[in-house]
Amino acid sequence: MGRSSCEVVAVGTELLLGQIVDTNSSWIGEQLALAGVDSYYQTKVGDNPDRIKKVLRQALGRSDFVIVCGGLGPTQDDLTRDMIAEVMGVDLVADEGLVERISAIFGGRNRPMPSNNLRQAQVPLGAEILSVMPGTAPGLKAVIEGKTLYAVPGVPWEMKQMVSEDILPDIRMKAGISSIIRSKTIRTWGESESGLAERLADEIERLDREGEATIAFLASGIEGLKVRLTAKGDSDSEVASILNSEAEIVASILGDEIIFSYEDQTMEEVILELCRDRNLTLGVAESLTGGLIGSRITSVPGSSDVFKGSIVAYSGDAKQSVLGVPDIPSVSQEAVEAMVSGACQALHADVALAVTGEAGPSPNEVEVGRVWMATSVGGVVQSHSVKWPFDRERIRQFTTITVLNTLRLRLIKET
Amino acid sequence: MGRSSCEVVAVGTELLLGQIVDTNSSWIGEQLALAGVDSYYQTKVGDNPDRIKKVLRQALGRSDFVIVCGGLGPTQDDLTRDMIAEVMGVDLVADEGLVERISAIFGGRNRPMPSNNLRQAQVPLGAEILSVMPGTAPGLKAVIEGKTLYAVPGVPWEMKQMVSEDILPDIRMKAGISSIIRSKTIRTWGESESGLAERLADEIERLDREGEATIAFLASGIEGLKVRLTAKGDSDSEVASILNSEAEIVASILGDEIIFSYEDQTMEEVILELCRDRNLTLGVAESLTGGLIGSRITSVPGSSDVFKGSIVAYSGDAKQSVLGVPDIPSVSQEAVEAMVSGACQALHADVALAVTGEAGPSPNEVEVGRVWMATSVGGVVQSHSVKWPFDRERIRQFTTITVLNTLRLRLIKET
Repeated sequence: MGRSSCEVVAVGTELLLGQIVDTNSSWIGEQLALAGVDSYYQTKVGDNPDRIKKVLRQALGRSDFVIVCGGLGPTQDDLTRDMIAEVMGVDLVADEGLVERISAIFGGRNRPMPSNNLRQAQVPLGAEILSVMPGTAPGLKAVIEGKTLYAVPGVPWEMKQMVSEDILPDIRMKAGISSIIRSKTIRTWGESESGLAERLADEIERLDREGEATIAFLASGIEGLKVRLTAKGDSDSEVASILNSEAEIVASILGDEIIFSYEDQTMEEVILELCRDRNLTLGVAESLTGGLIGSRITSVPGSSDVFKGSIVAYSGDAKQSVLGVPDIPSVSQEAVEAMVSGACQALHADVALAVTGEAGPSPNEVEVGRVWMATSVGGVVQSHSVKWPFDRERIRQFTTITVLNTLRLRLIKET
Repeated sequence: MGRSSCEVVAVGTELLLGQIVDTNSSWIGEQLALAGVDSYYQTKVGDNPDRIKKVLRQALGRSDFVIVCGGLGPTQDDLTRDMIAEVMGVDLVADEGLVERISAIFGGRNRPMPSNNLRQAQVPLGAEILSVMPGTAPGLKAVIEGKTLYAVPGVPWEMKQMVSEDILPDIRMKAGISSIIRSKTIRTWGESESGLAERLADEIERLDREGEATIAFLASGIEGLKVRLTAKGDSDSEVASILNSEAEIVASILGDEIIFSYEDQTMEEVILELCRDRNLTLGVAESLTGGLIGSRITSVPGSSDVFKGSIVAYSGDAKQSVLGVPDIPSVSQEAVEAMVSGACQALHADVALAVTGEAGPSPNEVEVGRVWMATSVGGVVQSHSVKWPFDRERIRQFTTITVLNTLRLRLIKET
């Protein structure tokens, strides 16, 4: 049997009008790739009976499996059920089990059930109901002229559960796919994408020849520059072993200065862990980032045992009164060093970082993009300056991850 | 002539694999709708010659206009040019003007031009080059059996400029569309989506009958709950007049307690404007939001004339030492009121806001979702409490917009 292919059809006029970006198809596409299933087409079609039928017939004609997403809700606009029945040439019949299940869900919520909801209990004669049903919309499965068509609701969490737990295992079984594909993401900071590509060029070339894994790069702003390793094998343990050996090779080439996580952790998670392991508390003084550094750190659950707080000193007198910064130009080495010491003192923190700079759009004391950063570890203050060629938002984001990375390297080396 | 339709074809294997979400097609779909052009299908296809040709032929068969997006770059994977030539049944020829233009762009950057880039100067015989060319990839336009096909690069800013300035005016002219469609977004906070729908039900029903505009709702988290008015007319002034009258009707129904912007401004922009008009400076004390409030405010360019700073006091001793909060439970009315007064003092701010609460995932002193908020205007402190039924990130976001809205209402009423 040759490779099997599956295509995705997304139903909904709102998708064509751009009111909703179709992230469902992208997610399904990624899952199909990881499941080892080829995918050649994805189609969006509006809530129109004839066009839905045409698209379904075409998809069944050229692919072995079709996943239809959306149009399974209770309203008159939800046409997917009806169109599948027409393509199959059968009637819709009420499924008694479904009627009971849907009624029970509404009963459990103590709400009267709108009669429309019973539309969701209609099933094309001969189609099956997917066993996974997280919401009130059942998923469907129908075999049509030897091809298999699956229908899932457009609500992302319902769709994802059905695809992961029911549809993908079914496709893999029918298509006789036993191999699995997994990825491992290594996060880096401090080297450009082309710089990483250059340093890994020989290894990428070797992999192209020998083929046990692939390497891809993904620039992700404040999340760092990701190196994604992908490998295929017959079992979880086999793939894990390939990915781990490959990660070791990449690590030996790039080194731990650049790699901050092998487990797809954020820089903030890494910093919190390093501080927690060393029993150190952390304080921040921010000017141009305006609270972004504190906000990122505190988005990590459980940060409060390490993180004392951040002094967002956006004005000169706040810098003076709260941080004890003398009356000097606010974007300067002297200012940022006074800020980091002030943060340690005011927040009773063991280690601290501080940033000040000009994010634009127009220059004030200094040129747009000029940033000073400082860290204090063991009472020793260090500072450095960068001139970013970016817009306001990226200046703030790149400053955040850069100063956190500076602190990370000092924590590893000095504590 | 009946209504003309245009469909979008996005080319790129990375789209099928879910490595990139196809936001280009969504954006083009939205622009087509605003231009009054119907759109019935959108297709994604990988970098495969036969499948690209099939999809192009089908699109030309069923729509009057086709916009192909992606696959116009300089590499061997970029097949769109070649496949258009094959569908047209013509050869690719080097366009001398393009060769010069592309060479000049690289000359201006003082970089040697990779010879691959000259692939981009190849044009199917009989096709035109779009006059708008913001990058190094030219857009193409070809008339094929009475239908018009446009090809644009997948780089969003290049694509958008070509579609807006060249393709849409061309489609509108060819299709004889003179009417225009515009939207106006009113932002609200303090009422649920179903609450808004209920209050506007009569007006929505009237519009359904009389049809001069439509109303749609869009829940946008920390950006507020948006009410989008859309209208069609023959000129900018006609549509503006319809939208403005409709906005007045919506305003008279919802009122300014709920509506915070008629111009699609963020809550932060509104607060900064209110303070600036009144010559007031603003200070913040944050606990559970961890810097998010300061970060949002300072993401607005020019915020530094109003915003003094934020004290992110994530630990009890930081609350005490910087804000002068006594040694009391940190999620309490007394604590939040001491925080807001402390922020005014420490930051020398005229008005201030403060938040403290439990964002979870597990409860500490109080239940997860319990939040206290306070504002200080003219030295008068007010506070209130909310229990959110959300996850950590939404608790932080909803707290941010809610406390800013409380301050907005006080600034309007009391100053």
